[in-house]
Amino acid sequence: MSIAGAAASADFTKICPLVSRRTNPKYDSEQTRAVRVKHVEFGAGQPVIIGGPCSVESVEQTLELAHAVKAAGGDMLRGGAYKPRTSPHDFQGLGREGLEILHEASLQTGLPIVTEVMDPRLVEQVGEYADMLQIGSRNMQNYPLLTEVGKFGKPVLLKRGMAASLCEWLGAAEYIAKEGNLEIVLCERGIKAYPSGEYSRFILDLNVIPALQNETFLPVIVDPSHATGVASMVEPASRSALEAGCHGLIIEIASERPGAACPKCDAAQAISPTALGRIVEFARSRAGQKAEKACAI
Amino acid sequence: MSIAGAAASADFTKICPLVSRRTNPKYDSEQTRAVRVKHVEFGAGQPVIIGGPCSVESVEQTLELAHAVKAAGGDMLRGGAYKPRTSPHDFQGLGREGLEILHEASLQTGLPIVTEVMDPRLVEQVGEYADMLQIGSRNMQNYPLLTEVGKFGKPVLLKRGMAASLCEWLGAAEYIAKEGNLEIVLCERGIKAYPSGEYSRFILDLNVIPALQNETFLPVIVDPSHATGVASMVEPASRSALEAGCHGLIIEIASERPGAACPKCDAAQAISPTALGRIVEFARSRAGQKAEKACAI
Amino acid sequence: MSIAGAAASADFTKICPLVSRRTNPKYDSEQTRAVRVKHVEFGAGQPVIIGGPCSVESVEQTLELAHAVKAAGGDMLRGGAYKPRTSPHDFQGLGREGLEILHEASLQTGLPIVTEVMDPRLVEQVGEYADMLQIGSRNMQNYPLLTEVGKFGKPVLLKRGMAASLCEWLGAAEYIAKEGNLEIVLCERGIKAYPSGEYSRFILDLNVIPALQNETFLPVIVDPSHATGVASMVEPASRSALEAGCHGLIIEIASERPGAACPKCDAAQAISPTALGRIVEFARSRAGQKAEKACAI
Amino acid sequence: MSIAGAAASADFTKICPLVSRRTNPKYDSEQTRAVRVKHVEFGAGQPVIIGGPCSVESVEQTLELAHAVKAAGGDMLRGGAYKPRTSPHDFQGLGREGLEILHEASLQTGLPIVTEVMDPRLVEQVGEYADMLQIGSRNMQNYPLLTEVGKFGKPVLLKRGMAASLCEWLGAAEYIAKEGNLEIVLCERGIKAYPSGEYSRFILDLNVIPALQNETFLPVIVDPSHATGVASMVEPASRSALEAGCHGLIIEIASERPGAACPKCDAAQAISPTALGRIVEFARSRAGQKAEKACAI
Repeated sequence: MSIAGAAASADFTKICPLVSRRTNPKYDSEQTRAVRVKHVEFGAGQPVIIGGPCSVESVEQTLELAHAVKAAGGDMLRGGAYKPRTSPHDFQGLGREGLEILHEASLQTGLPIVTEVMDPRLVEQVGEYADMLQIGSRNMQNYPLLTEVGKFGKPVLLKRGMAASLCEWLGAAEYIAKEGNLEIVLCERGIKAYPSGEYSRFILDLNVIPALQNETFLPVIVDPSHATGVASMVEPASRSALEAGCHGLIIEIASERPGAACPKCDAAQAISPTALGRIVEFARSRAGQKAEKACAI
Repeated sequence: MSIAGAAASADFTKICPLVSRRTNPKYDSEQTRAVRVKHVEFGAGQPVIIGGPCSVESVEQTLELAHAVKAAGGDMLRGGAYKPRTSPHDFQGLGREGLEILHEASLQTGLPIVTEVMDPRLVEQVGEYADMLQIGSRNMQNYPLLTEVGKFGKPVLLKRGMAASLCEWLGAAEYIAKEGNLEIVLCERGIKAYPSGEYSRFILDLNVIPALQNETFLPVIVDPSHATGVASMVEPASRSALEAGCHGLIIEIASERPGAACPKCDAAQAISPTALGRIVEFARSRAGQKAEKACAI
Repeated sequence: MSIAGAAASADFTKICPLVSRRTNPKYDSEQTRAVRVKHVEFGAGQPVIIGGPCSVESVEQTLELAHAVKAAGGDMLRGGAYKPRTSPHDFQGLGREGLEILHEASLQTGLPIVTEVMDPRLVEQVGEYADMLQIGSRNMQNYPLLTEVGKFGKPVLLKRGMAASLCEWLGAAEYIAKEGNLEIVLCERGIKAYPSGEYSRFILDLNVIPALQNETFLPVIVDPSHATGVASMVEPASRSALEAGCHGLIIEIASERPGAACPKCDAAQAISPTALGRIVEFARSRAGQKAEKACAI
Repeated sequence: MSIAGAAASADFTKICPLVSRRTNPKYDSEQTRAVRVKHVEFGAGQPVIIGGPCSVESVEQTLELAHAVKAAGGDMLRGGAYKPRTSPHDFQGLGREGLEILHEASLQTGLPIVTEVMDPRLVEQVGEYADMLQIGSRNMQNYPLLTEVGKFGKPVLLKRGMAASLCEWLGAAEYIAKEGNLEIVLCERGIKAYPSGEYSRFILDLNVIPALQNETFLPVIVDPSHATGVASMVEPASRSALEAGCHGLIIEIASERPGAACPKCDAAQAISPTALGRIVEFARSRAGQKAEKACAI
């Protein structure tokens, strides 16, 4: 039976010629194509650290956390205005109001914004406010949506589906690239496997980082918040991800201020701004060491 | 260990009150809410057998196969006009032309049509031709799309995501139900697990059939073509699925006529109309035996 | 990267030439090599139904259930004397005393016995009482044990490991065959995948049945008790497994007599002798229909 | 969903009271019980780096690699004398001869030895030569073997089964502890999940490291060679594992000397002694930084 080899025989030069390293020889075996979001650059040396709330819940909460991200040394602000939730009866995000709050937070802090878009009909609306459009895990293979963000042209953060193969992931990126948009950053966010739910929500798959870098020139970042689902695991997972060679992190935070409201979603995985600061410091010192070594040689 | 740990703790009465058996006491512990698609009824006794090509490729191919489904005793016609493909460079379906071909095939054979819609902006177009709208695995958590087919009101075939939990699947159904549309049929189509690709494409999960029937009154069918990915496994998988208690099957076929063109996608899993006929016969004789037994008592 | 294809490229003629269909042309593409355990034959037409308690707990319990298996029409008696348990502080089985109880039950009912052996040093002891030696899932790749039961020569029931590939499973069978013992029956018992624990304990993998029959001439049975872990799923899973083409079933039962003690292990998956009777009846009538059809032709 | 559902409901104080942090209050919430193997200590600050060939193939090969481990700054020597192989027709290791070669290598270099034992009848023989006995993944739930190494008393390296839950793994450790032997080091080595075989052999699960440290005081190391199966992934995986908080690494190496023979097993995952040296350097500098920081405070 020759079912298998789906992977082994997967011909990336045919499936995703626009994002494959092999069909784009100007990127040598290690080079990453940098993706610029305003003044921030993914894949250009310094890891990019994105922080912010799971979802935008109010002006106060968002501004507080945006300033906290800034103070911690973070590069960009995340926050959901349109939230994909397992049940339609759960909080679905503030929608356009949330986008306006993010915009205000960006004005005050100078941090570019990444936020999720789920509906091809809302790409223009979300894209008006966002500096980078996030495609969530549930929509990694929502091809009309990928096509629409491809056409829109702003940078895209493409999260891996919860059970996506490398082949399916790069195929999804190719849908965006086909519309002429190569401003794509990939994001590993944990996969489903048998231990999911025993001690962590998903399984952080770091093997995929060098595998991606072998196959594509697109930058890749890691979401340790969803990949673990447990606040106390986020810091070690962040350091591990950086050592695996990723180009940045996207992390959920919540206020540690006494009296701050508990987040409406994913509270268990939010870390404090203080912890975010330690992660930023680790990322910077690591990059510094590398630069130092390079100079010494 | 307490089995069904997550499920036990997942509160279906909160996540999906509209489709949960527990919050709808008029459906007793075994009763299914029948879903009618023209003259065909899912969950009303006789299993519903849906057959047809993976994708609509031409008038000739589709008419030939539609007549073959009819001759084999099948109840409905399947066929993709809009095809979700891993690579954007692969055949994406004939679009509206494909819908018109399906329509003609339905007129000639009297078979109602089920076909996939991927884009919320195309629900009206696809829904004009289709008697039942299919939400594919990749889009099980595409919530704007679920909302749109919920509003449209025609019956929906909701395939399970490749890594969806029971909870996530019923949550997806709830998005449709929330718009006032309870005409939902669930479809198990194989999940991703470590053996995927060694000897079959996905792992057919029949345990989920009684688990679903325990939690919801919605009918459930099985797609043995995608769940196996191997033509020679489709027949045994179909019989197994019926014995597990499902309310129907959706099966891909291809012409066995000498000189017929090879399908443009998923050729390895298409069975012949003759094999489809044997499956229909098995389904009917099984239902007959049950009726006979019921009479004897 | 050419990691994959572990499966695709797996050369069964090298890995397991003694049990591979391809290297043993006397078994044509469908023929099974029957394995005889006393008067019972696996792979010779009639499915073999094995029933009994999870573990042997007392003379009374075992005799009651052995007679119940006999009365239900079962072919063989199962029951654990040496029990592999996740914690060393759980009940580990009665050991040799359990074997003697099984022996007495076999004398009274005429049912051959299958029971697990975990320790290569106990193969002789267990083999003195058992008519068939069971290798449990946890020990599928315990090669010294496989070698020992291979040398001992009595029939072996080789359960699939919880995460075993087809290749690893047949490789394990080859260890037994290499010692000159081809009296091997394989047993699918559910695999670990992401849904394990949500609604069933393991995922029953029926795709592996035709895959096995494609690669080897060894008979294969199914354990629906462990594959589901839920008593109410055992009957549908049993029927499904028979339709998938397996050569038998091994099922855990518990007394339905008022006042009967609750089993010390795996109580949630034990079915009643009455339910076992229905499964036997299904298996017999199915085999009968097949024979009738064959005669009619 | 409450994370760690199964784990939360799994009562570790009953399943594994001897190795559970909760039932052993003398180990506070972070403390590790150090395990000493000759002069080497696991869990005592400095990460322990173990290097060596997959299997012992000859005196020359083993001595060369042992000296290379020593020169690279490694702490211990690994090497298989008894090799568990998927097929019985593959090289099974040199057995006692291999143990003698390891012994000679240890004498020449001063490196303590860890090597695998698979058979309870060989625990004494292997234990005569080895300073630490390895239980391989395939035998994690081989309870008679665990009991035997528990009785023998020498330190044990307990690898995680390819599909073992946290609960099953700690249950296995408890079998060793029950015999009075607490000299146990756990080893994460990758799990089976749907991507296994596409771009890496297994999925390195680093989430389990903090999860383990939350539940037990036993030290834990990581095997990046098996967890990836790809030589070029071993270095990043090693650094990631150290950042995740593990207490050491066990790594397969092969000679980079021109003309050196290709390893008889797992050649694709062996790294060079030079690469091992970089990993040791990373581990040492990291530990150094930590110590420096501690002094500064």
